[in-house]
Amino acid sequence: MNSLAANATDPLLFTPGPLTTSAEVKRAMLHDAGAWHFDFSARVQWIREQLLSIAELSNEDGWETILLQGSGTYGVESVFATCVPPDGKVCVLANGAYGERMALMLKHLRIAHTVLRAPENGLHDLALLARTLATDPAFTHVAAVHCETTTGILNPIEDIGQIVKSHGRSFIVDAMSSFGALPINIEDANIDFLVSSPNKCLESVPGFCFVLARREALLANDGHARSLSLNLIDQLHGFEKNGQFRYTPPTHALLAFEQALKELKWEGGIAVRGERYRKNHVVLIEGMTRLGFTAYLTPAMQSCIITAFHYPEDPRFQFTEFYERLSHKGFIIYPGKLTHADTFRIANIGHLFEMDIHALIDAIEQTIGEMGVKPCQNGETCFPISAINSVHVS
Amino acid sequence: MNSLAANATDPLLFTPGPLTTSAEVKRAMLHDAGAWHFDFSARVQWIREQLLSIAELSNEDGWETILLQGSGTYGVESVFATCVPPDGKVCVLANGAYGERMALMLKHLRIAHTVLRAPENGLHDLALLARTLATDPAFTHVAAVHCETTTGILNPIEDIGQIVKSHGRSFIVDAMSSFGALPINIEDANIDFLVSSPNKCLESVPGFCFVLARREALLANDGHARSLSLNLIDQLHGFEKNGQFRYTPPTHALLAFEQALKELKWEGGIAVRGERYRKNHVVLIEGMTRLGFTAYLTPAMQSCIITAFHYPEDPRFQFTEFYERLSHKGFIIYPGKLTHADTFRIANIGHLFEMDIHALIDAIEQTIGEMGVKPCQNGETCFPISAINSVHVS
Repeated sequence: MNSLAANATDPLLFTPGPLTTSAEVKRAMLHDAGAWHFDFSARVQWIREQLLSIAELSNEDGWETILLQGSGTYGVESVFATCVPPDGKVCVLANGAYGERMALMLKHLRIAHTVLRAPENGLHDLALLARTLATDPAFTHVAAVHCETTTGILNPIEDIGQIVKSHGRSFIVDAMSSFGALPINIEDANIDFLVSSPNKCLESVPGFCFVLARREALLANDGHARSLSLNLIDQLHGFEKNGQFRYTPPTHALLAFEQALKELKWEGGIAVRGERYRKNHVVLIEGMTRLGFTAYLTPAMQSCIITAFHYPEDPRFQFTEFYERLSHKGFIIYPGKLTHADTFRIANIGHLFEMDIHALIDAIEQTIGEMGVKPCQNGETCFPISAINSVHVS
Repeated sequence: MNSLAANATDPLLFTPGPLTTSAEVKRAMLHDAGAWHFDFSARVQWIREQLLSIAELSNEDGWETILLQGSGTYGVESVFATCVPPDGKVCVLANGAYGERMALMLKHLRIAHTVLRAPENGLHDLALLARTLATDPAFTHVAAVHCETTTGILNPIEDIGQIVKSHGRSFIVDAMSSFGALPINIEDANIDFLVSSPNKCLESVPGFCFVLARREALLANDGHARSLSLNLIDQLHGFEKNGQFRYTPPTHALLAFEQALKELKWEGGIAVRGERYRKNHVVLIEGMTRLGFTAYLTPAMQSCIITAFHYPEDPRFQFTEFYERLSHKGFIIYPGKLTHADTFRIANIGHLFEMDIHALIDAIEQTIGEMGVKPCQNGETCFPISAINSVHVS
């Protein structure tokens, strides 16, 4: 199975989602489903159960899947909008754009919050988190990002969860770009709400998101929802009532997701998928290093999902030209999102395989040749490694 | 062109959206687009311009199209969440579930509001609206539904708009199930915000919605947004900055919509599409009347979009059995949503043509035969016309 063959006419997406999906996932959208139809409701129910199963959770143990229309951001905001009581306060751990986005949501929702910031290439100060929770009883929730797509940094969600648990707070995790490939022990990590998306490691198309919620934590705050559309509890009650979304669901995206979840199972589950991504990542790093590019993060912090690379210092390197030349060759990469360094990003998730990464590396080698950006000799780093900001780990 | 042929293996959807789309609209989703890619941004921009063009509006005249992830409900709520100031107050005109849903949104958003209710089979009391606006200066906005999908009733949006204008208030219209088929003179109707959906008369797939906004009315209330995801002004600024959605867009649904908008143009525009729906509706009413079914609304109030029919009084008529038998024959109809009468609904929008309606009528005739529900003789009404509630029109 190889995506170059499956999508012969389309460029490959080395982006963190929307990403390259299999031909059959897309072909599942060739049908118009009636949103009220019992067959469709049964498919939605199967999807909800399957997501719990992937997470090794169950209804019997008090867990619920809530599918929600909109992008992943809507899902994270829905948890805040629904589950934080009027006098609640959220401690946000941020080391990238998606942590900052949580703070922006809370500001819009007029929910009290504090942001504990780490550098974009550094991990959170967990001692500071513990002190913060110990000294301010107003905090009801802690919110963190698992894999911060800004850099690809992997935050130690289980360690954070232990601190949240020992201080008796509720834990909200944005696992958008990690769920489905990186194992997360949700119970051990003390997570109450995990938000993710079909169009990341689950390799489906965008259109909705989902929240895995501890039922008790979800229902504890019924009646506070600050938005009708983003009311997670009402959304759950909709599924409970008749298996349906409260409002028009993205039917085609749901049919695609059903197929994508089957393909995850056929591939061997999240361990096998994660291993494919790790191999993709190894090929990517080896190839980019050989060409002289330097990753922004140190390997210990780097996830196998997405990698930020420094711009070469060679003034002949212009990102827009680089991007467009690669695009014309059939390879779509991703711009950087960092505040302190010029980077571009390459994701290696989606329906991509080792040979696709080799093909990308070849195309990058050819492109920097066309641009006159001098490639380096094997083993030699011709682009300087940027100063790594101080790393806080406790 | 005939949808029976185009979707030979799929049932036809006689539902108000998601609905039956053309084969080519669905086939447009067989591609994974990079959300950040310049080609995709250009397509999004074309869609935004095309929607203004369909509405006979333009950027030059101060109008903007804002596409928003989520169902149509999200779009209506986004207008309230973004554009009503903290001390604002909304007067909602409700004669069905979608008007009531507006009130529910405002309740969630903690926005002051009053609901002026008319019966589900009656029009709004416009004299009452005028008195309400004249006596309470706190009202900043009036919100109404154009075609109330609960019954298919068509509210006189231009008449309402004249009253709103004469009282100097801002006007928000849910035109979800009418835009693209029924002409709306947005300027004459004094509309500031019109919300609609790709998966109604524009015959595309669900996944996002759109707001046509008078730029001045939109920006007048910058800084008040009660939700990040539903912040319409930030969403507009995203499109202005780089042509992109702020957050992951439903790329496949957008590619489908591009095709659907082309097909609307090829069909001859909204006048020709509206005429097709009117013909579908005539065939539907004639056929259902011949079989002895009675429409819930009087013809003068009835739109050509969706029609509610009374349950036959014959106790052998059970809706679930009726629905399932029709479904097995390849025809998906829609349940009722009325509070005071047992009805089911049949929509005739989407990629449906007169012969599809004839096929549906044949299937209904066969089904009531199978169920032993006695069909009536031509011209004879064998099911009683329900008492029509008092109709308020001024």
